[in-house]
Amino acid sequence: MSLNEFDLIKRYFNRNITSKNSGVAVAIGDDCAVLDIPNGYQLAVSTDTLVSGIHFFADVNPYRLGYKALAVNLSDLAAMGALPKWISLAITLPEIDERWLSEFSRGFFALADKFNVTLVGGDTTKGPLSITISVKGLVPRAKALLRSGAKAGELICVSGALGDGGVGLACKTAETAVNNPQIFIDALELTEPRVELGLLLSGRASSCIDISDGLTQDLSHILNSSCCSAKLQLQSLPLSDSLLNELDLGTISADQALQYALTGGDDYELLFTVNAASLEKLRRLDAETRFTVIGSIVKPQTQLIQLFKDKNKVSLSLDGWDHFKD
Amino acid sequence: MSLNEFDLIKRYFNRNITSKNSGVAVAIGDDCAVLDIPNGYQLAVSTDTLVSGIHFFADVNPYRLGYKALAVNLSDLAAMGALPKWISLAITLPEIDERWLSEFSRGFFALADKFNVTLVGGDTTKGPLSITISVKGLVPRAKALLRSGAKAGELICVSGALGDGGVGLACKTAETAVNNPQIFIDALELTEPRVELGLLLSGRASSCIDISDGLTQDLSHILNSSCCSAKLQLQSLPLSDSLLNELDLGTISADQALQYALTGGDDYELLFTVNAASLEKLRRLDAETRFTVIGSIVKPQTQLIQLFKDKNKVSLSLDGWDHFKD
Repeated sequence: MSLNEFDLIKRYFNRNITSKNSGVAVAIGDDCAVLDIPNGYQLAVSTDTLVSGIHFFADVNPYRLGYKALAVNLSDLAAMGALPKWISLAITLPEIDERWLSEFSRGFFALADKFNVTLVGGDTTKGPLSITISVKGLVPRAKALLRSGAKAGELICVSGALGDGGVGLACKTAETAVNNPQIFIDALELTEPRVELGLLLSGRASSCIDISDGLTQDLSHILNSSCCSAKLQLQSLPLSDSLLNELDLGTISADQALQYALTGGDDYELLFTVNAASLEKLRRLDAETRFTVIGSIVKPQTQLIQLFKDKNKVSLSLDGWDHFKD
Repeated sequence: MSLNEFDLIKRYFNRNITSKNSGVAVAIGDDCAVLDIPNGYQLAVSTDTLVSGIHFFADVNPYRLGYKALAVNLSDLAAMGALPKWISLAITLPEIDERWLSEFSRGFFALADKFNVTLVGGDTTKGPLSITISVKGLVPRAKALLRSGAKAGELICVSGALGDGGVGLACKTAETAVNNPQIFIDALELTEPRVELGLLLSGRASSCIDISDGLTQDLSHILNSSCCSAKLQLQSLPLSDSLLNELDLGTISADQALQYALTGGDDYELLFTVNAASLEKLRRLDAETRFTVIGSIVKPQTQLIQLFKDKNKVSLSLDGWDHFKD
């Protein structure tokens, strides 16, 4: 790229860092950024790549792409109970499209500013469109939320509602026709990372993960890491008012809704385990994020996840479900 | 990608981290890695993307690609005087090619192991071949080597030899025909990041940068950041025995050699400024890395970089040279 093209990129991404609390000792413009890690904290880091045509549609709204690329990374920090602080952004573009860059950066910084995270570096290269974001956050020493801490007798909880992201993706690919697709597409593309809840869970939940691949798949990561099994109560799965409305209208069947909630993915809610005493504390502390108890952890069984409807064990055949069977 | 394909990737990249001194509290396999930053240190971070067809030839030897992708990132840490500690690797591949992955990871870990850096995360996705590496290192608080600290009267030094990387690139693109091209191609592809020298320079050099774009261009970054100008002594530019040999053979002219040394790029040597007292200390400490005084920093002038041959000011017309002129 020519110098002018780099200048254009700088216009959208290189900001002066003025915040006193940013923890940035050396910002963009040297060989590295230099960051201050306060005593008593550890650094949590995560990296995700989004490739055009694989993770997003080539014609995606660039504002929403910039927003979501950051959102899924912040969600990883939330799942560790970490406070997001810094981001590196590596973006590969086939050509310099000023309108596209302007919108992408607007979406990116809308979310970055909301959570007070600072862009400290990155790279812009010419090539097929893809985005790699590396996020860095702070977690009090030894208080990171792992996947491996769940214990038999604890409760399984999930924030927000399940299934809307999966319905949104199905709307985009025209696999389903609902009455109000935009609500679900918004849920898919304007994901709200559960950062505040993650901070509350640190030191209180025994395990945590964010739901990117679907409830059952992500729960299985916790169960495998923690060497235990789970009982899920299907009637407790939280569905959004929008999804319940489509059920009422008959545009989505009850079985379909259950499938989206269990395996849909792209919800970016937090799935966590907690004992009864901590659950009560969390309920008092968490005035804003609704979360729901959806099951319990049990000792390891042949079947990793058992599904119940009230007290009756049920057997469901769901897409993406095979590898959880015996 | 299917689960089996992910397993294949895991085989090459997910290693058990056993070293007690790795500083890794939580390794690959959770939502984030969690890292210990010792008291009194700051974190230095840098991210670089290499795209097939832009930064490397599509048919590049994968061992050398894995090696060099990491080398250029470690070079950024070296230029800050930071100790490399951790790496995240995001790799996008059009298809799973087991031999390619095996060789890429072998080259990558050859260098990672040499400098005792640990792979703590990353992402593998399907798409056009590209590699994004984010490196993290430790630097004693307030001891990072910046571009902005050069002062009039100080000496300009460079490690190793200049021009071999540029000649190597010219050999690859058949722009030049030398007697022994492999030596220069090796210099291009098996770059040795100057990590140990960077650590020695921390707290001693007044500014530092690594030479990726060519001596004059990278020197101009120091001069612009430090608000000063430079006088370079052309007769002092260090050339390798290999390059001097080609000069003797007449396969490269003296003017061409000078051009490669000044603007060739891809040398990944450290360019730094230092006062006379610190220079003497460095000479005593640095038994291994040869470095050469090539000029001096002067007060800001109209001409950012003046070239001298002995005491005579010379005017050279070199490719990529225009933007340094008045």
